[in-house]
Amino acid sequence: MTEVFEFAKRLIAAPSVTPARGAVFDAFETIIAPLGFTVHRFVVGEAPDGPVENCFAIRHGPAGSRHFAFAGHLDVVPPGEGWASGAFEPEIRGGLLHGRGAVDMKGSIAAMVAAMTEVPQDAGTVSFIITGDEEGPAVYGTRALIDFMREHGHQPDLCLVGEPTSVNRLGDMMKIGRRGSVNIWLSVDGTQGHVAYPHLADNPIPRLVAMLAELEALVLDEGTDWFQPSNLEITDIHVGNPAHNVIPGRAEARISIRFNDTHSGAELAGMITSIARKHGGEARPVISGEPFLTPPGEFSALVAQAVKAETGIEPEASTTGGTSDARFLRAVCPVIEFGLVNATMHKRDEAVAIADLDTLSRIYAQIARSALGA
Amino acid sequence: MTEVFEFAKRLIAAPSVTPARGAVFDAFETIIAPLGFTVHRFVVGEAPDGPVENCFAIRHGPAGSRHFAFAGHLDVVPPGEGWASGAFEPEIRGGLLHGRGAVDMKGSIAAMVAAMTEVPQDAGTVSFIITGDEEGPAVYGTRALIDFMREHGHQPDLCLVGEPTSVNRLGDMMKIGRRGSVNIWLSVDGTQGHVAYPHLADNPIPRLVAMLAELEALVLDEGTDWFQPSNLEITDIHVGNPAHNVIPGRAEARISIRFNDTHSGAELAGMITSIARKHGGEARPVISGEPFLTPPGEFSALVAQAVKAETGIEPEASTTGGTSDARFLRAVCPVIEFGLVNATMHKRDEAVAIADLDTLSRIYAQIARSALGA
Ligand SMILES: [Zn+2]
Ligand SMILES: [Zn+2]
Repeated sequence: MTEVFEFAKRLIAAPSVTPARGAVFDAFETIIAPLGFTVHRFVVGEAPDGPVENCFAIRHGPAGSRHFAFAGHLDVVPPGEGWASGAFEPEIRGGLLHGRGAVDMKGSIAAMVAAMTEVPQDAGTVSFIITGDEEGPAVYGTRALIDFMREHGHQPDLCLVGEPTSVNRLGDMMKIGRRGSVNIWLSVDGTQGHVAYPHLADNPIPRLVAMLAELEALVLDEGTDWFQPSNLEITDIHVGNPAHNVIPGRAEARISIRFNDTHSGAELAGMITSIARKHGGEARPVISGEPFLTPPGEFSALVAQAVKAETGIEPEASTTGGTSDARFLRAVCPVIEFGLVNATMHKRDEAVAIADLDTLSRIYAQIARSALGA
Repeated sequence: MTEVFEFAKRLIAAPSVTPARGAVFDAFETIIAPLGFTVHRFVVGEAPDGPVENCFAIRHGPAGSRHFAFAGHLDVVPPGEGWASGAFEPEIRGGLLHGRGAVDMKGSIAAMVAAMTEVPQDAGTVSFIITGDEEGPAVYGTRALIDFMREHGHQPDLCLVGEPTSVNRLGDMMKIGRRGSVNIWLSVDGTQGHVAYPHLADNPIPRLVAMLAELEALVLDEGTDWFQPSNLEITDIHVGNPAHNVIPGRAEARISIRFNDTHSGAELAGMITSIARKHGGEARPVISGEPFLTPPGEFSALVAQAVKAETGIEPEASTTGGTSDARFLRAVCPVIEFGLVNATMHKRDEAVAIADLDTLSRIYAQIARSALGA
């Protein structure tokens, strides 16, 4: 499986700051097409959230066989400054392959593709759901791929997302769920005036403070078997009044809720809106993602077995962390996330252990074979 | 008393946006010196709060006579845009003299000076405490004049500040006190982090919200016979966190307290600092002025009598509104404020009724005579 290293280098060498199009998909196509995959590439969306390139690649097994999908993204976050080597010039130092996307998640996609050499075509149908916008607004990314798959009748039975879920060493963690996320902009209007004549003004700040105190005191839930308690953070307050003798006319705040599967974004948005209105304010919710959970069972067991077979350790089944495209794929079929060590993701000098690339590729091959019932 | 109109025009014609120096003091000197006053002018202070010109003018009465002081300012707030005539080109329209400072308070100073023609020198000592910085930071204004007076042994028995205290018609209100003012900058430090990992962060906003809720609920006092209850307003909150998935590392707010004479600025600053610290925050108080009160008595009675004699109405003895230089002069002797109708002060097309200038000058002459016991 030396292909995985070569594949990773070729993907990293194609700059693909989100939203990605063109070269990195060319590189992906040239490595997956020879393995018997039919490649569908399409560009969707307009500024500011697009255009975005997406790719659905499929290799059909025998009629009636199961369908296993790998999902991932070829876009990367901006490299920033101060790299020891070029962010898009893959370089080996000390057993590590350096470059933006090494772990998140071009290395992982390279491992998926290389794994295909170990999964015979007659084992079943395998597809790749690869977007160019997971790190950005994700409006025209995986959602568009799901639409494409529905329109063309492609329905995976199980899906593995290759996000870098490992924490200290490859294999120590998989994600069987992710919390949902909603951000809510709060505002209270009043009447501006002079502090010497408060009866002629109507200060909106005390109402905002009372609203925030009530929100801060909320206990959303106690957590579940698989999820931490849902959490509400006040992330910003803004009045913007430079004049110390002026009572301001408007006060604003923003909260962020990460919530488990005892809630939906809409239910939380409704509840917060009620509280905001009770205090004479307004709420503008933006739901970034609903929670997903693939409860421990057959799928998580086969992932765990594959991980243990190759690494000797049992992955923790976690639901922590931020959102991922699993928030969309959950609507298609059961989803689990497993991938490289995330210590350097989104950081300067992002790097993957070359040995991990090989190991991950073997794990992915075994997961695919098991998922297909081969 | 047609001098008062001429004097007002000459003062208005000298531009004197705060801090004022030069021409407007030249104009003042040329109108007061011929009336037997010794004029002391001096410039103090450096940027950003200076330099400022001040003028102390005194006409001594017989040895042992009482000393009555007029106080006021020759600086004005910036005129802004859109005047019907030039802000520094005094113009009469419809019985009104227009120009920046017409009521606040060059018209008033003109009335004080003109009044001197009606107060014989042997009635007693009269002085003018005139600053070029009342509308600005007032660091080098009346405070420097008080220092000058102390150094030179000038100690008035009573002082009248010519701020425009009348509301609907000349004579309806005098100020026997003003509330004190303190602005306090509050801050809470925490540890920045990602909303998905709140246990690794320390959000300062809940502590700030709890602090502000406690401050908002404070009842500072119930007011006094002469003062409204002290009032605390939260005037600003600032976090400045644009990233909706980030827990901020610092949260700030600002409050403004207008307080009556049951408090001092230092006592309030200490109390708020204790509350801030209880919530893990800090407080940085800036006291703009202590309250002053000249309780109703002989001085207010003689002002009221003079006002009633010339206008037919009894002035309300008020302690409302913002701060004035009386906050400094209170340390020298009893102070009362009385002056023109303030409807146009600090506004476009500031204007004074020409008839009011004459009436005010007669009122001031009577106040000075009574105050001197003449
Ligand atoms: Zn990723
Ligand atoms: Zn004034």
